[in-house]
Amino acid sequence: MSAWTQYSPTRIFFGVGEARNISQHLAATGHTRVLLVADPFMVKSGIAQEVVDGSAGIIQGVFHEVDPNPTVANVNGAAAAARQANADGIIALGGGSVLDASKAAAAALGSGLTAEQLVTGSPVTGALPLIAVPTTAGTGSEVTPVAIISWEERNIKFPLGSPLLYPQVAVVDPELVYSAPGKVIAASGIDVIDHCLDALSSVKHTPLTDNNALNGARIAFANLERAANDKDKEAINEMMLASLIAGLAFSQTGTTGSHAASYYLTSRYHVPHGEATAFTEDAWFRINARHRPEINELVARIGFADADAVADRLNEIKKSLGLRTTLEELGIPLEDVDGLAQHTVDANNYGNNIAQLSKEEVKELFLTRSSARAGA
Amino acid sequence: MSAWTQYSPTRIFFGVGEARNISQHLAATGHTRVLLVADPFMVKSGIAQEVVDGSAGIIQGVFHEVDPNPTVANVNGAAAAARQANADGIIALGGGSVLDASKAAAAALGSGLTAEQLVTGSPVTGALPLIAVPTTAGTGSEVTPVAIISWEERNIKFPLGSPLLYPQVAVVDPELVYSAPGKVIAASGIDVIDHCLDALSSVKHTPLTDNNALNGARIAFANLERAANDKDKEAINEMMLASLIAGLAFSQTGTTGSHAASYYLTSRYHVPHGEATAFTEDAWFRINARHRPEINELVARIGFADADAVADRLNEIKKSLGLRTTLEELGIPLEDVDGLAQHTVDANNYGNNIAQLSKEEVKELFLTRSSARAGA
Repeated sequence: MSAWTQYSPTRIFFGVGEARNISQHLAATGHTRVLLVADPFMVKSGIAQEVVDGSAGIIQGVFHEVDPNPTVANVNGAAAAARQANADGIIALGGGSVLDASKAAAAALGSGLTAEQLVTGSPVTGALPLIAVPTTAGTGSEVTPVAIISWEERNIKFPLGSPLLYPQVAVVDPELVYSAPGKVIAASGIDVIDHCLDALSSVKHTPLTDNNALNGARIAFANLERAANDKDKEAINEMMLASLIAGLAFSQTGTTGSHAASYYLTSRYHVPHGEATAFTEDAWFRINARHRPEINELVARIGFADADAVADRLNEIKKSLGLRTTLEELGIPLEDVDGLAQHTVDANNYGNNIAQLSKEEVKELFLTRSSARAGA
Repeated sequence: MSAWTQYSPTRIFFGVGEARNISQHLAATGHTRVLLVADPFMVKSGIAQEVVDGSAGIIQGVFHEVDPNPTVANVNGAAAAARQANADGIIALGGGSVLDASKAAAAALGSGLTAEQLVTGSPVTGALPLIAVPTTAGTGSEVTPVAIISWEERNIKFPLGSPLLYPQVAVVDPELVYSAPGKVIAASGIDVIDHCLDALSSVKHTPLTDNNALNGARIAFANLERAANDKDKEAINEMMLASLIAGLAFSQTGTTGSHAASYYLTSRYHVPHGEATAFTEDAWFRINARHRPEINELVARIGFADADAVADRLNEIKKSLGLRTTLEELGIPLEDVDGLAQHTVDANNYGNNIAQLSKEEVKELFLTRSSARAGA
């Protein structure tokens, strides 16, 4: 039994309709003036206004200029809006992008830094308290201490991380996902499974993260298809829970192979994040289980024969959800497999992956995704 | 799916030998002067001195006058010692008693109150940071926000509770238990199972506490006999982990029937805490599963046919560990069953129990423990 550590300080409120009780959760934090950073869809749909109305006057401003891959400009804009509102905290209402941008803005304000300074390595020395209200079942960012911020002009995509970035409060309300398109529920939901399998595949796994990862995977495997394909509300509730539990796991372990292999798919070929991580997850999980055979015993606890059975079931779900599974479907030429492999082994989180494949081996892994090749 | 909340802010360091690295964990907290409150056995065995030696000069004093059921005098004494050492934090090295006394002293100092004021209901408004280092595999107190303190002159036994009482850091080192007598490992270890079954039986159960309770029970059922009867080190490691995980569960749900039914057994008949909670746990678990049938499905996840199979296995372990299972063995006259039942339904935590039995029903439950009656 080797040594490990765990730190999950976020106070969680989970429940259908909880976002409408935001004033109660704000009271628990002692905030008196906060900025709401909201997803543009949340503003358009009126949900942001409902949250403002439920805040008992504590929300003093709304900022909604956040790109799908949040930029330094987004972060600086949110920080300026918070300064203008004289805010002592930030509420983030949105998907992973809004949560990440808000974390970075909170760090910029608390550390007296610009977003550009943060993404070039200036250390986080403080952060405004953050209340995270996720509107997708997938990111888990409501309980993680990491934010991915881009500075496009400099070709920088920086994983800003600090224990100070754990949200103070997470208000997890499945109702916020009920109106999401099935395609969004599918792509974000498959990422929940990827977070869980990545956590099991991390060199930083612990008995607590293993248990959370198994539990999150168990719930997601049982509910994702009904949530995405049928928009079943009970299944969406369960996916929101699975996303949170997956966050509790990978907040400690980091993400691993499937995520390392996904960034170039997203940045170069615009594959949605969840679809991109799922693209290779089955292969990584099989390989990692060969390097950590205990994974086979662990997944037996949630009813799988072994890691291969998990990978097979993941592939079944990908098909059922209509996610693309070949390089050809994604429009990626075989000659760029070298680039895919290079970006994977260069990714910050690749070091977390138990199986440290060489670049050539990662190329082979990607080639199994080609319909032109046997075994795809 | 009903609404729930979760708050587990303690930073955990787990590992064999971790207590010897205490200076590293102190550095993470920023403390510069702390008081060590240590179990008398830890002082005698030299382990307290090892911790002092490993503290890089940060430990400025040692206090070790803590009774098995910590008193207001113990708490005031620890608080005075901390004041004298000009301490900005407290390290608690011991079993549940030392951890509880230290939490209360930290609250007394942080709130500017005496122990007498705290146990008569003056609210905790602050607390010195606490580093909890458990030396038994059972209490789980290293991650809970509760301390039980007695004021014997006034016949008060007060469950002091506040989110401010969560230890800032828990250093969980199984090595500290290796030298404990098998009897102590048995009595504290059975309490781990009781914490898990109580958490499943609480009206405050959540999906996260259910998962932790199941995981803690799974580990404890598999390892307790080897830890207590054979003093197997790997099994003790696992029991230390199970104790921590059980603490993560019942810190959120509170304890329930088995604990409510235990206090009078301990205060009047001096039954050790774990033996006292285990005395009725099997019966409470069967009854609670009838009121929350989902418990049967939950325990199936860890390989039990149903709640009855869990209760049967618990009874098997009690026998194997040599714990007493009848009123006669404990020397309790049948005429005091009324007192046992009254103290149970009057206990603060009885309201957490899913099955709200009447006093008469609780009497019947206790009578099933008489060897003079059928079904004992």
